[in-house]
Amino acid sequence: MSADKITVYGHDLVTEVMDQWSFTELTYAAITGGLRPAREHARMLDVLLTTFVDHGVTPSSLAARLTLLGAPEAMQSAIAAGLCGAGSRYLGTMQIAGELLLTSLKNAGQPADEAALSNLARDIVQEYRRDRRHLPGLGHPEHKTGDPRTPKLMDIAVATGIAGVHCRLLFALADAYADITGRKLPVNAAGLSGAIVVDMGLPPVAARGLAVVSRAAGLVGVVLSEMRTPTAQAIWDGLR
Amino acid sequence: MSADKITVYGHDLVTEVMDQWSFTELTYAAITGGLRPAREHARMLDVLLTTFVDHGVTPSSLAARLTLLGAPEAMQSAIAAGLCGAGSRYLGTMQIAGELLLTSLKNAGQPADEAALSNLARDIVQEYRRDRRHLPGLGHPEHKTGDPRTPKLMDIAVATGIAGVHCRLLFALADAYADITGRKLPVNAAGLSGAIVVDMGLPPVAARGLAVVSRAAGLVGVVLSEMRTPTAQAIWDGLR
Amino acid sequence: MSADKITVYGHDLVTEVMDQWSFTELTYAAITGGLRPAREHARMLDVLLTTFVDHGVTPSSLAARLTLLGAPEAMQSAIAAGLCGAGSRYLGTMQIAGELLLTSLKNAGQPADEAALSNLARDIVQEYRRDRRHLPGLGHPEHKTGDPRTPKLMDIAVATGIAGVHCRLLFALADAYADITGRKLPVNAAGLSGAIVVDMGLPPVAARGLAVVSRAAGLVGVVLSEMRTPTAQAIWDGLR
Amino acid sequence: MSADKITVYGHDLVTEVMDQWSFTELTYAAITGGLRPAREHARMLDVLLTTFVDHGVTPSSLAARLTLLGAPEAMQSAIAAGLCGAGSRYLGTMQIAGELLLTSLKNAGQPADEAALSNLARDIVQEYRRDRRHLPGLGHPEHKTGDPRTPKLMDIAVATGIAGVHCRLLFALADAYADITGRKLPVNAAGLSGAIVVDMGLPPVAARGLAVVSRAAGLVGVVLSEMRTPTAQAIWDGLR
Repeated sequence: MSADKITVYGHDLVTEVMDQWSFTELTYAAITGGLRPAREHARMLDVLLTTFVDHGVTPSSLAARLTLLGAPEAMQSAIAAGLCGAGSRYLGTMQIAGELLLTSLKNAGQPADEAALSNLARDIVQEYRRDRRHLPGLGHPEHKTGDPRTPKLMDIAVATGIAGVHCRLLFALADAYADITGRKLPVNAAGLSGAIVVDMGLPPVAARGLAVVSRAAGLVGVVLSEMRTPTAQAIWDGLR
Repeated sequence: MSADKITVYGHDLVTEVMDQWSFTELTYAAITGGLRPAREHARMLDVLLTTFVDHGVTPSSLAARLTLLGAPEAMQSAIAAGLCGAGSRYLGTMQIAGELLLTSLKNAGQPADEAALSNLARDIVQEYRRDRRHLPGLGHPEHKTGDPRTPKLMDIAVATGIAGVHCRLLFALADAYADITGRKLPVNAAGLSGAIVVDMGLPPVAARGLAVVSRAAGLVGVVLSEMRTPTAQAIWDGLR
Repeated sequence: MSADKITVYGHDLVTEVMDQWSFTELTYAAITGGLRPAREHARMLDVLLTTFVDHGVTPSSLAARLTLLGAPEAMQSAIAAGLCGAGSRYLGTMQIAGELLLTSLKNAGQPADEAALSNLARDIVQEYRRDRRHLPGLGHPEHKTGDPRTPKLMDIAVATGIAGVHCRLLFALADAYADITGRKLPVNAAGLSGAIVVDMGLPPVAARGLAVVSRAAGLVGVVLSEMRTPTAQAIWDGLR
Repeated sequence: MSADKITVYGHDLVTEVMDQWSFTELTYAAITGGLRPAREHARMLDVLLTTFVDHGVTPSSLAARLTLLGAPEAMQSAIAAGLCGAGSRYLGTMQIAGELLLTSLKNAGQPADEAALSNLARDIVQEYRRDRRHLPGLGHPEHKTGDPRTPKLMDIAVATGIAGVHCRLLFALADAYADITGRKLPVNAAGLSGAIVVDMGLPPVAARGLAVVSRAAGLVGVVLSEMRTPTAQAIWDGLR
């Protein structure tokens, strides 16, 4: 920033970015340290950002409402309180699934054909079962027969040409799991997002970063809704 | 949310929103409680979101980096720490400017012609000077001869048909201030954003909410940058 | 901090502070920039710290529990989320009451006799009624006939020789309010704490700082309780 | 809480706790779900609380100062931002050391004599070296020849009769490490605090909780100091 010029990730904010880059493209630049995404990557990223906007009653939205009750002068802190809960239990899945897929394929030398992928998936499922660990990216407490976001995300990942070996390995994991255990545990949206982010060439942690941006937008909505129609006092009264 | 359907602000996430609404449109829905913006409003909103992405060395980005140093396992908390500083001193300006413009015009019965607007502006400047209060939306510590984002924002506000009486009153305030004091204090981007948001029919606090979303994206970039290239330890070492 | 010595507020931590200063005394040093309190001030401060430890179901404790649900790896963030709500609505009272008392007495030239204090109190009550402002430090939503902590706090403030003109003005305000309006609004513990802190020669904001320390201790208890006996999932399930 | 009675951890706040329990004792009750500590445990706990009050220039205190710069209206958020950094890197050590000692002794059937303890320590050191993991509780980046707090903490742990098998195992680890590697890595204060907390019969996570309370007090001091003598703007200016 100088007296008459503002630079953002190496680009002149006023002459190059404003009204030319979308916010989603700038978010990609933030994540990558300055790159502008290809058009299809921007489309995919935008879909990921919309998919995880927090809506309805969630632990984060409740924490934000309760925080605003005590500190109405600091809406940013109510949002911050909500984001503090965006930790390993929900958003972590994206990153952990992405890391599992990335590492497994790297170690395996990136097998290209379906048979090799299927074998790799069986090995991973068996290793996780032996260690009694939870496989990330599969199953959902609410959507037991399948996360409705998964096929839509996959359609777009295919349409944009992004879906690659990491997405395929994730679905192979679900198949291997059903095969080995006899129980279906469908691919969830968080896991698939982790796979898509890695197929886009971004680090797994970027998936979690995108979800934080989505949540921030959702929480801004929550805080404005709480200002229009307060609910936190009633929530509190109902709990004591 | 039911077993096979997710609703976001009254719209079916999978069949109506994903790949059809942009993230910026969904942020508008979050702020308004469910509305989809007109195309020109979406364009304007997107520009506002890009304008305030935090970049470079700011108090928020430093707080995020220093927080990550102590808690590398919780990137969401580093972002939350950065957002906690998005308070009255920087982002507040948007909201306070928006509120001043909205209230002044409401109380004045919304004068339409330039002479009436100019008189209103003179009254406001004189009232603020009498009370020794700082006029929000004018001046910038770095951009003393003019905030480079201001003309660009105004161009887009005009091109989209959004620029209205609140924007005009803000520029009238700058003129009145120069007239009365002999000193120029140009309209800054934060103030103009407050005016634009009010001209879009949104509450002034929405301006602050948008800036929080922008900052969240910027801070995600900061945290990923800190993970790639740590700086916090060196910052700390340099200060003690 | 050097290789073999750690200094805390100007005192050698190992040889002068540990096992010699109480934590409450060190908190006083933190607030005052290094002073050790007189014995009676340490006693009073310790009582203030115990009075505001968060217990039971409060907005802050709920926010902390809900945050831990999403981010079990970051207990410090759950506590931070709870503290974010320690804002103007609850803790602000202490500071605002302290500021009102301090400023009023400063402006009035510190009247010593009861008649002058009573007149000052009447003036303040009438000014607040004229401006339709809420008088800080009086009344409590739960303890309508009197906050049970108030007489105990006052006893200790008297026993320690701390109770002074600021405490007296606060009680005079309650009397004046009852006199003028015919309705009783007893002195509450938050307001009296503000008065006591000012009578101790500390700035009003120190009252709020002490309450933050109390809350932090309470919230540590909340987080450990949530770890032993999780409740957040059930709270969430009950609300959607 | 009823109209005329406030209960804290099962005790009547006014008649049983205020002016009778110290804040440190109430913090013990918060941690344990209601117990009052024995006198010697209260003494030890108070020393632990004083040992970790944040002072001087730390990542947490810098984050708090920078946050206050942007949001001077929300001191609680500046403290919250500082606490968000109280994560695994610094405070985690206490908990991780405590867990290592607790688990190792549980698995080993709690060997009482020094020879058995020494063998256990050698096994642990060798296991950590084989896995190339960092041994928690040993070494300090500043205090290379020994953390000056360690002997003082140990003296008090012995004087209060608290020092037990977990403290002894920690020192045995340092001895085993020196023996096996030929390099000295003295017991640090964080590690010893973890051992002491476990020797007090508290869970390892309680050590981290205590440190959060200490930091909160330190950060209140930081925020009040920043209000008296602002430094954040200069820190920021110096970094860009």
